[in-house]
Order: sequence, then structure tokens, then C-alpha cells
Amino acid sequence: MSVLSDPGTECLAELAALLGGRMTQNAAIRERHGTDESFHPTAAPDAVVFPRTTEEVAEIVRICARHGTPVIPYGTGTSLEGHIAALRGGISIDLGQMDRILRVGAEDMDCTVEAGVTRKQLNAYLRDTGLFFPIDPGADASLGGMTATRASGTNAVRYGTMRENVLGVTAVLASGKIVHTARRARKSSAGYDLTRLFVGSEGTLGVITEVTLRLYPQPEAVAAGVCPFQDMEGAVNAVITTIQMGLPVARIELLDEVQLASVNRYAGFDYKVAPTLFLEFHGTDAWVKEQSERFGEIARDFGGGPFRWATEQEERSALWDARHKAWYANQALKPGSRGWATDVCVPISRLAECILETKLDIEESGLVAPLVGHVGDGNFHLSILVNPDDPEELERAEALNDRLVRRALAMDGTCTGEHGVGYGKMGYLREELPDAVPVMAAIKRALDPQGIMNPGKIVPSEP
Amino acid sequence: MSVLSDPGTECLAELAALLGGRMTQNAAIRERHGTDESFHPTAAPDAVVFPRTTEEVAEIVRICARHGTPVIPYGTGTSLEGHIAALRGGISIDLGQMDRILRVGAEDMDCTVEAGVTRKQLNAYLRDTGLFFPIDPGADASLGGMTATRASGTNAVRYGTMRENVLGVTAVLASGKIVHTARRARKSSAGYDLTRLFVGSEGTLGVITEVTLRLYPQPEAVAAGVCPFQDMEGAVNAVITTIQMGLPVARIELLDEVQLASVNRYAGFDYKVAPTLFLEFHGTDAWVKEQSERFGEIARDFGGGPFRWATEQEERSALWDARHKAWYANQALKPGSRGWATDVCVPISRLAECILETKLDIEESGLVAPLVGHVGDGNFHLSILVNPDDPEELERAEALNDRLVRRALAMDGTCTGEHGVGYGKMGYLREELPDAVPVMAAIKRALDPQGIMNPGKIVPSEP
Repeated sequence: MSVLSDPGTECLAELAALLGGRMTQNAAIRERHGTDESFHPTAAPDAVVFPRTTEEVAEIVRICARHGTPVIPYGTGTSLEGHIAALRGGISIDLGQMDRILRVGAEDMDCTVEAGVTRKQLNAYLRDTGLFFPIDPGADASLGGMTATRASGTNAVRYGTMRENVLGVTAVLASGKIVHTARRARKSSAGYDLTRLFVGSEGTLGVITEVTLRLYPQPEAVAAGVCPFQDMEGAVNAVITTIQMGLPVARIELLDEVQLASVNRYAGFDYKVAPTLFLEFHGTDAWVKEQSERFGEIARDFGGGPFRWATEQEERSALWDARHKAWYANQALKPGSRGWATDVCVPISRLAECILETKLDIEESGLVAPLVGHVGDGNFHLSILVNPDDPEELERAEALNDRLVRRALAMDGTCTGEHGVGYGKMGYLREELPDAVPVMAAIKRALDPQGIMNPGKIVPSEP
Repeated sequence: MSVLSDPGTECLAELAALLGGRMTQNAAIRERHGTDESFHPTAAPDAVVFPRTTEEVAEIVRICARHGTPVIPYGTGTSLEGHIAALRGGISIDLGQMDRILRVGAEDMDCTVEAGVTRKQLNAYLRDTGLFFPIDPGADASLGGMTATRASGTNAVRYGTMRENVLGVTAVLASGKIVHTARRARKSSAGYDLTRLFVGSEGTLGVITEVTLRLYPQPEAVAAGVCPFQDMEGAVNAVITTIQMGLPVARIELLDEVQLASVNRYAGFDYKVAPTLFLEFHGTDAWVKEQSERFGEIARDFGGGPFRWATEQEERSALWDARHKAWYANQALKPGSRGWATDVCVPISRLAECILETKLDIEESGLVAPLVGHVGDGNFHLSILVNPDDPEELERAEALNDRLVRRALAMDGTCTGEHGVGYGKMGYLREELPDAVPVMAAIKRALDPQGIMNPGKIVPSEP
């Protein structure tokens, strides 16, 4: 059955009958639900619905399935590769009203939340339990969205990504059936790993409505620090050595001198303008001290220093706040511009080479493109600042992105370390995993034969 | 197309033409390839083949696919739920001759090996690199088999299971096509997680021929220790507290008093006969000392001690050797018996309750069934010693296993923490994840429409 681009009055009438005022065709709301934080053009859905339960989501999907209407799950709209664009129209399912924390198992260090709960909301809730959820992609994204896009961020070098920290999901399939992918045991060998299949599926296999997450004890002691380097090569080689020596850094973030200047200007800091590492160690007092000193020795060997250490919560918050403001700081760096965000990830042995070549490429392109990276994983980002009304500049940005991705692929890396595929990187996915994409497409067709689940993302929806 | 139970002379002739002497119908070899280490009856394949390359495996599968002949991958035959039984005849693909270590990336701390490389072979090879591969299921299994069964073992509490440590696989699909599931970046958001789909698929979706694995720096300092407890409850509660306090134990293994006595007798040790924890800490000297002392305090609170600490390599090896001999020690505990091995995994908050109820159940059953567990994950095993010629005893063992699994499921646990489903636990998998099994079956049908890949395991092969 082909997908209708017009959901039809009947479908909308059935949704209205189910949801009343929690379905809308308001133009501004539709527009917002078809716009992410990237440079991809807006593609508004025909209507937006606001379910409150998994059962309601199931009923919505059943209605849409009967009419062959596309369904696009929406969390907070902070994705970066066009994930939420309603490329073929259809219904945006906004999970924002599903924001209940259903259960915290302090003894088991896990919790179950509805998909619309954001990471900051969860951590505020957990504050008094001695536990926290570490995955931190920067934006205060919903945990359902973070699951669907396999988010990671600054803490991944220590705690892993959503892949390692989602213990199970509840999802609504294209048929409107509800699936629970796992029980609550910490590990299991019981059947195919459907949890990991839904993590990173970007709404193309089902709508994630609940997630069970792994939690961690809040560290007894935390030390954060900022360490400038004489050059980029020294900074990257210090990271590589740190990882290879097995130093358990909780965060190790690289900002190039352009990004550092941008953050300084935006947030009123006075860090030295140089390639700089932001670090954090978690543990006991003695451990944090020992590991920090070890890192200090490594940094000195590679032309790094002097450090600024921050052990007080307030100071640390300011530091990470500065790091998280990078994205917004950049918009201010070139007024009127927007950031074309892209990320790649390479084997860490190739990281220095990849970053240095990319820096040269940026310089030659004449573009402004601050570089920031979760370099402990070999992952880094460009935020290419472009004037949205300048087609020539847009073209140059696209070409720079293209060269970046191909450079990473040539180094046996991936076209995206954490932003996901959406529709922006579908072509690169085929280049990266040419014999795997047909397998993904076969799975897509098996679970969504009509092709109604977020069509046009990751793999083609059509047989 | 239906699956032939007789591979037919034509199929065998084509395989013989391809492989010459590396195909056999020798009865003893067929018998051995249809027999695992469990209590499940032997089901011999019609022939065994010994390919040397991924291309050869692809050609074998293409031949079998043309004839609708089942294909059963074989590693070292140490699985425990009938995974390698040729339930519908067919061809056993023994990957033992694919035993090359293809690449070690010391800088990236990863390696790529052929499926037949065993974990001990890999670690022997790595010895001088300063790296090691931690996953240790006890048996010296092949890394392809460990991937296919999502193995874990004693180190999983610190290093994760095969799920977390396989970075990518090369597999031959039912069509005979070869798929590479990932590049070498440490993390990626590029498309569906096919790597994790193959990890734990037990040969039902394809034949894994190569795996890329994560390696770790050999710890600078290791301390191992043995700590007896006054009672089982104290031992389990000490584990729960250790995990909840975030102590980074590398191993924390429970042996009940029956198991301890068995190991003592078999290996000539003189450990106190009591519920006992075997532990290991990895780190720096100072760290290992600090964490060991912290554990000591926890243990004392729960009636544990005195410790025997072992920091010398030789002493530690003897200790873990004793732990690993549990399985074989048990066979000696009741001469003429064989062990009916089973494992479950529950949320750690329910672990004490689950173990205590199970101990009582064993006592009431009149059976001998030593208990041993990777308790840091909530995972434990029974090895029910049965006389294979006593149908009444077999029936009692089956009933004990049944009650154990149902107890774990009632506590929101899983029917298998690490042994896998094979055909022994297919019924329990349906009970555990009733709405997920149809999704698994849909994926199975999409990737193996003829149902030739290890049929009769995990999910039914028939539409």
C-alpha cells in the first residue's frame, strides 16, 4: 500500500474523536514540530497529537495505519539531521505530555520513565536518591528521543551511550501492537536484542513510549579541569595517551581555539585562547587526586598546561555550562548565521590526523567552523556557520561536510558518532555500510510493511 | 519452501567438490558436532564442513540455500541449551580452522579475529601488548561462539558482556551474502544496530565469521580474595551493598557451601565450607588497596570474613582456576552423574530472595545442585547432578529448573542471563517476552525466509 501524503479528513476526524483538544492543525504548532535545530528545511506535519499513555499512542498508530498515514515521533525537537521532518506529511506524535517518572529502583539502580521525560527532569528528581543518569548530549532532550537517536555526549567515554544504558523499551509498532523488549535483569541472553534494535531506530521501527534506564551512584568526589595546549596535535595526542593508559576520565572534551574564543566571548570567560581540553574525573577523593595528577603528567609531555582545577560544584557547573553553550555561542559568533552541525567518529589512532586535516580544510574553505569533540571516543563536531540566505556559502558548507564525512569513512570511521542519520546522512550510511543497509531495509519492511513509521529516514521505506 | 531433513546427495556432492577432505560424514565427528556440554540429547548433523575463509562459508551457505538444507554453526561445542543440535539434520559448519588473529590495533585497543579463535588463544597472543580481552565464560570457547550466544561470565560486572565488547561482525546471511555490520569507530549512530542483533542470535540469522572486539589495558595491579560468610543471606547482601556503593569490583562470584565443598574436594583446596565470595579488583596499587579495604568493611557488616587475599599472579590463578573448575568438580561430586546446567538473572534487589527460595527448593527436591553465580549482575547458575539413566531423577531436575525459571520471571528477571535460549528455553522465552517474540520471528523470517539458519532455536523457523 502506498503512503498518502494527505492524511485525509477521515483519519483526522478519528484522531480528533480520540483526543479532542489534544490534536491540532494549528499552523505555528505544525511548523514547530517539523523544525529541528539543524539546517535542514522545515517539513511540517499535517497535524500534531499529544497522547498521554502508551495505549493512546497505540490507538493513534492504529488509526494512521488504517489510513496509510505517516507517523513521526517528536520529543523536544533538538535533533540535528532532519529526524522529525514530515517529509511525506502525516501526524507528529508529540510525547511531551508523557512525562511521568514511573519507577525508580534505588536498589537496582534503574528507573522507568515515559518517553517525554527530559534528562534534566530525571536528574532533578533523582537528586536525593544518591543516583544519577549520566548521558548528556548537551540539549535537555527527552529520554525517548535520546533513546531513538542513540544519543551520547560528554560522559560517554566513561558511562557509554544510550546503547549501553537503556535496559528496555516499550514501543508501539506500525501495527499498533505494543512491545516490551526486556525484563529488568541487568543482563540477559534471552533472544534477539530488540532493545538495541530500537535504540537508534529514529522512529522508523516504532514509537518508543517508555524506557528503562540504568542509573549510577553519584560520585563521591568530582574534579573538573581546563587545560590549554600549545597546539592541536599535542591536545589530541594527550587524549589518545590518556585513553590508552586506561585513565578513567569521566569526560574529556576538546575545544579548538575558535570554539574557545567563541565560548569566552559568549559566556564572559577568560580562558586562554588555544586548543583546550575540558576534563572531569569521578571517584573517591584519593582516586580523583591520583588520576588528575597522572593526567597532569601526560598533558605536560604534550605541551599542555597550566591547568585550572575546579572541585567545587559551582565552579564545575560554570565550566560545563561554558562547554554546553558552545552551540549557542557559535550562533552569536557570526550574527545572522545559523550553525550547520555535523559530527563524525574515527578510530582514536586516526583522530589527530583527522582533526588536523579538517582544520586545514576549514581554513582553505574560508568558512567559520568551530570544532568541539568528545575526543575520548574519537568523536568530534563541526558547527559550520552559514548565512541561510547565501546559497554560495551553503554550497561551500555542504562541500566541507561532505569532505569531512568522506575523510572519516576513509579512516574506517563512521558518518555520525551521535547525531544520527535522519535524512541528512542516508547517502553516507550507504557508503559506510553498503552490505548492511539492505539488511536494515529488510528489517524495516518486516516491521513496517506499509512504510508509515517516520518514512524517508535511515533507510528507504519502499520495498 | 520447506526444509529438507535429508540434505540430499546433490548438496553433499557440491560441498565435497568445494571442500574436498574438509567435508566429512564420519559418524563420530558428526556425533561430536551434535553434542554440547548440556544434558540435551545429541542431534548429529548429516555432515560437517571445515571452511577456512568467509568466502568459503558464503559458498557453503549458498549451496545449502539452493537445496533448502539447514546450516548449524559450530565453535567449540561448549554451549548449554542445545544450540548446536542438528534438530532437522543439515550441515554443521565447524569454524575451528578459521583461527587467525587478523589485526590487533594497540592504539585503538581493538582487534579483529576469525570466529574460530578462542578467548585463551587471543589472550596468549595479546600478552606482550599490555592489552587483554576480559570476557571469560569459563570454557575456552571460540570468540565467534561467544558472540553468537552473547556470552559473559565472571568479569561482566566490570567489563560488560559480549554485547558491550563486540564492535562489529562479519556474517554470512541465509542468502549467502556477506554483511559487515560496523566500521571501527568506538561509537556510532549510523543506522540500526546490526552488530547487537547478531550478538546473541545463536546462528539463526547468519554465520558469524569474523568479530572485532574491544580490548582493555592489563590492569597495573590486581588483588583477588576469598571471603566466607556465616550465611547465604549475608553473602548476597554484601554483594548488593558493594554494587550499590559503586565499588568497581572486576569480579564478584558466589559459591554456595555445596559448590565450595565440591571445589575443595576436586582441586585439593581447604577453603572453609560456607557460602563464599571470590572477588577481584583491578586498578592501581593504591586504588586496589582502598577498594579492597572498603569491601572488607562491607563484608564484616554482613558476617563475612576472614579474607584470604591473593596479590601474586600464581596464587590468583589457582584461585580462579578453582572457581572455573566448578563445573567439572561437580561431575565428580556424584560419580556417574552429569550436570543439568541452568542459569537465571534477576534484578539485584531480588537476588537474596531468589537464591534463598531456590536453596530451599533444592533441599526439598532431594537433588544435589551446587549453586554458583556472577552475583554482581544478579545472575546465578545451578548445576543439577542427575543420573542420565534415571528418568525419575531427570523429571525432578526438569521440574526444579522449571520452578527456578518461573521464580526468576516472577521477579521480573530473565530465563537466561548468559547461557542463551537454544531450544532448551524457547518456551520460557515466550513467557518472558510474549509480545517481543513475534517481532523476533518477523525479523527471523525477513532475514531467513527458508528457515535454514540453525532451525528450531530461539524462535520457530516456520512462518
